[in-house]
Amino acid sequence: MNEDWLPLGFRWSGHHCGLKSNSDKPDYSLIVSDNDAVAAGVYTQNLVCAAPVILCRDRTPGSRTRAIVINSGNANACTGSQGINDAQKMAADVALELGLEAEQVLVMSTGIIGQFLPMEKLSVAAVEGVKKLRCSSAAFYEAANGILTTDKDRKTACTTVETSQGTVRIAAMAKGAGMIGPNMATMLAAVTTDANLSQGDVHGILKKAVDKSFNCISVEGHTSTNDTVLLLANGQANSHPLTGNDLAGVSDMIEQTLIKLAKQIPADGEGATHLIEILVKGAASIEDAKQIAETIGGSNLVKTCVAGNDPNWGRIASAAGYAGIDFDISGFKLRLNQTLLFDGGEPCSFDAALVSKSMAECDSVLIEVELNEGDQQARIWTSDLTTAYVMFNSDYHT
Amino acid sequence: MNEDWLPLGFRWSGHHCGLKSNSDKPDYSLIVSDNDAVAAGVYTQNLVCAAPVILCRDRTPGSRTRAIVINSGNANACTGSQGINDAQKMAADVALELGLEAEQVLVMSTGIIGQFLPMEKLSVAAVEGVKKLRCSSAAFYEAANGILTTDKDRKTACTTVETSQGTVRIAAMAKGAGMIGPNMATMLAAVTTDANLSQGDVHGILKKAVDKSFNCISVEGHTSTNDTVLLLANGQANSHPLTGNDLAGVSDMIEQTLIKLAKQIPADGEGATHLIEILVKGAASIEDAKQIAETIGGSNLVKTCVAGNDPNWGRIASAAGYAGIDFDISGFKLRLNQTLLFDGGEPCSFDAALVSKSMAECDSVLIEVELNEGDQQARIWTSDLTTAYVMFNSDYHT
Repeated sequence: MNEDWLPLGFRWSGHHCGLKSNSDKPDYSLIVSDNDAVAAGVYTQNLVCAAPVILCRDRTPGSRTRAIVINSGNANACTGSQGINDAQKMAADVALELGLEAEQVLVMSTGIIGQFLPMEKLSVAAVEGVKKLRCSSAAFYEAANGILTTDKDRKTACTTVETSQGTVRIAAMAKGAGMIGPNMATMLAAVTTDANLSQGDVHGILKKAVDKSFNCISVEGHTSTNDTVLLLANGQANSHPLTGNDLAGVSDMIEQTLIKLAKQIPADGEGATHLIEILVKGAASIEDAKQIAETIGGSNLVKTCVAGNDPNWGRIASAAGYAGIDFDISGFKLRLNQTLLFDGGEPCSFDAALVSKSMAECDSVLIEVELNEGDQQARIWTSDLTTAYVMFNSDYHT
Repeated sequence: MNEDWLPLGFRWSGHHCGLKSNSDKPDYSLIVSDNDAVAAGVYTQNLVCAAPVILCRDRTPGSRTRAIVINSGNANACTGSQGINDAQKMAADVALELGLEAEQVLVMSTGIIGQFLPMEKLSVAAVEGVKKLRCSSAAFYEAANGILTTDKDRKTACTTVETSQGTVRIAAMAKGAGMIGPNMATMLAAVTTDANLSQGDVHGILKKAVDKSFNCISVEGHTSTNDTVLLLANGQANSHPLTGNDLAGVSDMIEQTLIKLAKQIPADGEGATHLIEILVKGAASIEDAKQIAETIGGSNLVKTCVAGNDPNWGRIASAAGYAGIDFDISGFKLRLNQTLLFDGGEPCSFDAALVSKSMAECDSVLIEVELNEGDQQARIWTSDLTTAYVMFNSDYHT
């Protein structure tokens, strides 16, 4: 198999260590760089943040990072000081096996909130996980499987980009946020690249890419205790740190990769039948546009009408109206799958059956709002709301 | 029947005029004062507001108000200038029958968004509605029925309060907000009292009462195009305008009446199986407390776990954490139906089966959050999220 797309100098593993009840499902993943990598992290804004988030905040940005250890099945959140000790131990166990310092290892956890980690299992897992490390697509995908919780599908996005110093490779994996169920509501992502990025650049590149990708998706707006995106760049593809057009090109490609990855999350929301893309144009500022898009995307009434293939534009217009952003209704246009439904405060005549059919026939729906307030725009992605979501999230007992 | 509780000098009617397809359901209601009443209104903050809201904003506060006309089945929202003309005509038709000026009549509408009112039916309805006006509990309840859309139950709250100038009566009706379905998401309420209130007092009294009642409930946070609360006080119970303790007593009782009425709305949310009461104490400000309460109440993950009788406190703690309010997690306590689940960043051991049983056995659930930031508190009410809600809101075609 051609595996040229794997970033140079990285190895991965994923295996089952006993955190998930189903022994077919891996629940412990490792991502290791063979040399020191620069690392950046973007984290949940939730005040109630999990122990691994506290640990990673402390260790990023970093210039000597070598590994990320990730477990699923237990979020190590709301676990107080013991949780912090446990996260540190997870990193230390991996460091010991790899001959590293504990501070060179980052940690992510996802799963049930409020339960302590079974540390004996995790210490055994560190030994096993390091033994299984491989530089292969099979190992990469096994690691990507190991971070999932109730996701239906594995989420990865990989790409390459040419620079004046040769090809750069980017390989990223994620697990779903919200809607993913009873155990937790966490979005995790790990991005690896062999680009040579300076420590000064790496955080800004990741932050910008996350703003345009993971910060533009929502399922039910529940910012989790564990949300984390980590980027490791080990520089093996380039002899010198990238600058100028090379740097811009890699930065842009990381952003595109994360957008590709992020869109897989609402598309795989529990029970979701449509990915909803919401584009707000003609706003006075990007913030205004995003606020309106997020308010529409956060409306259960909008989400349910999309699930029912119902072009109920009144709910969308009404959601735009309570977003808290001032606009002139006479300059307001609303389109659903490119059909104009509402224009300047007046309803348009349209073929509802035809629009409904266009919604039913496609697994994504486009809602476009056009204002006459400026030339700024924002785009977000969310999922529809179905009975399957509710069943999934209520049929569980703590 | 003892009908002493009906405010003096008011008459009501409700009948079917053809806006709803089911001819058993009234869809046109009138509330008429026999003399000039002072009137106040509190309205939706939605920029996309309906024609009757625009009309009422213009006519309140008022000192010569005589009637409220309310139709269900059509919201007259997103209907542009024709909608404004139609709302004016609704008022004018009623005024003509009653020998009033059009400006003495207020209008509320609820129902589908974006369709024009069938004005011929409404003109006929004005004649019929005025003929049916009665000062009786039957007429009051018929009017309360006529404003409903998909509410399961009629919503009324009535009370009396003693003053040094005799007994004052308050009778209020409402229809549900949000979650009430496919046609719209509107909360309407009309409050009538025979208290003698000065025009200077009436708006402040209503605003304060609404802040403590209707502004503390949510179903899915969808502020509608039509939300309206109107208060008419015709003064028939007292010879002089109330002041001092009398005024405070009536003001307080209006607030209590509206709280009683408001709580019926989430309790009757489509498919709701629990009313959720959320109390946040120990906050630095009322605004902080309310923001945290609303964030918890707005979380689909919290709403679904309550529907499933699941004491999944991690979701509640996590929602509190992303409310955007700074607090010290070490002073954070969380109780569900009075059982302490999470204390100072550490999980508490508790009998999950027992707490789950307490949720299953009662149609309301109490979530209490205690902070250590100050002595302010806020309380809100919302409903849980069930598959029935989703079915109801997606099984509809525009």
